[in-house]
Amino acid sequence: MNDVVLVLSGLDPCGGAGLVADIESINQFGVTPLVITTNLTVQNTVSIESLVEVDCGLIVKQFKHLQADIDFKVVKIGLLSSIKQIKTIAKLVKNKTIILDPIVKSSSDCDFLDHALIDALKQYLLPLAKVITPNLSELKILADEQDEQKAIKKLFCNWILLTKTDSSDDVIEHCLYRHGILIQSFIYKKLSGSYHGSGCTLSSVISTLIALGLSVEIACKRALDYTYQALLNAKSIGKMQYHPNRQSPL
Amino acid sequence: MNDVVLVLSGLDPCGGAGLVADIESINQFGVTPLVITTNLTVQNTVSIESLVEVDCGLIVKQFKHLQADIDFKVVKIGLLSSIKQIKTIAKLVKNKTIILDPIVKSSSDCDFLDHALIDALKQYLLPLAKVITPNLSELKILADEQDEQKAIKKLFCNWILLTKTDSSDDVIEHCLYRHGILIQSFIYKKLSGSYHGSGCTLSSVISTLIALGLSVEIACKRALDYTYQALLNAKSIGKMQYHPNRQSPL
Repeated sequence: MNDVVLVLSGLDPCGGAGLVADIESINQFGVTPLVITTNLTVQNTVSIESLVEVDCGLIVKQFKHLQADIDFKVVKIGLLSSIKQIKTIAKLVKNKTIILDPIVKSSSDCDFLDHALIDALKQYLLPLAKVITPNLSELKILADEQDEQKAIKKLFCNWILLTKTDSSDDVIEHCLYRHGILIQSFIYKKLSGSYHGSGCTLSSVISTLIALGLSVEIACKRALDYTYQALLNAKSIGKMQYHPNRQSPL
Repeated sequence: MNDVVLVLSGLDPCGGAGLVADIESINQFGVTPLVITTNLTVQNTVSIESLVEVDCGLIVKQFKHLQADIDFKVVKIGLLSSIKQIKTIAKLVKNKTIILDPIVKSSSDCDFLDHALIDALKQYLLPLAKVITPNLSELKILADEQDEQKAIKKLFCNWILLTKTDSSDDVIEHCLYRHGILIQSFIYKKLSGSYHGSGCTLSSVISTLIALGLSVEIACKRALDYTYQALLNAKSIGKMQYHPNRQSPL
């Protein structure tokens, strides 16, 4: 069996988020990660200082050279930082099974995407995605709509796994929608502290389990359980945000 | 406990070698990988098409931003592609515990380093390294000496773990030298097929075990066993070289 997932995302040197999170998570399930970096970031557990976009020509070369050799079907997309990058990648991945983590704002509060980029994301990538994994603020920005239900309807994605951290002091709720209709909700006890890369972990495990043949519902449920366990066992390696421990036993 | 290893190496999109190999291996031992990419490569299991060097200014920024936040002591260095990169990195890491994988030639037969680069590696990085992990052809190039024993003496490194694949049809021998004196040799049955990233796996596991407090002798022995097991369980995801399965049980 040839189980591979291609991830396209930023490289975070402190390894909490981005491609390192993706690689660690995917590898935990015995699946092989292929990686193309979209941005090189200057980042630690406290702050994101800057990011350098990778040239689109190089991304195309890397993608085509992989494709000439390896039969990959599932692609997870994270941080993208220009309209050109969004258009280029949309063109490359249009026949793949796409899991899109629409990173609009990082957990360290650095705005990654401006409004023209959000429009490009909506126009070129959202319609191609099988699953998107926004949090509540990302959903509202993507749909340009404050009301949650209206935002869900307005986006009309195949599958939306929505993370709601602010609706209660005690719990985090994840709602799985299919074509705008709530299919299932998942509730977890809220953990104290701040975590670096929980969203990357979640979306890459969903991608991995879909690559292994699971349904979206089961993939989302298992990925949420795994991510929660990684957060429960998180490590402190720097001064601020904790690292999810993706080496947790399955 | 704050167990981290910084890796400085190339990013191989097919994930057999380079930073993906390092991340997967380090994470298997519950240690956190920090990563700075030195080169973005266009690579698959068949060939290395090209590589793009990462700007030294960005590498310095990333290193300093990590260092301001995280207390890391062990650094594993892999693929470097310019004299400027070698000098820059040598200056950054001079007070760290360095494990150097002197990548002179890739397993796909693309020459990475020219002679001026080899001289820079010898002048700036070799004297700083606690352990170097060459294969026999890399040793001979580094020492500019065909005779193995003379080459070992001439380099006069702290620790050299030498991999000899060509001395027998049946076995691979690894020789561990300290200050030019053979301390131990390790013999493994030769496996058929060609593997992508075995050297990266070996050197990153040595780094990881040294970060966990093990002696060089025990770190080398365990890293060799782990790497051998990863090769025994290797996966075929493309048309040519196999991927070591670093998710093997410990």
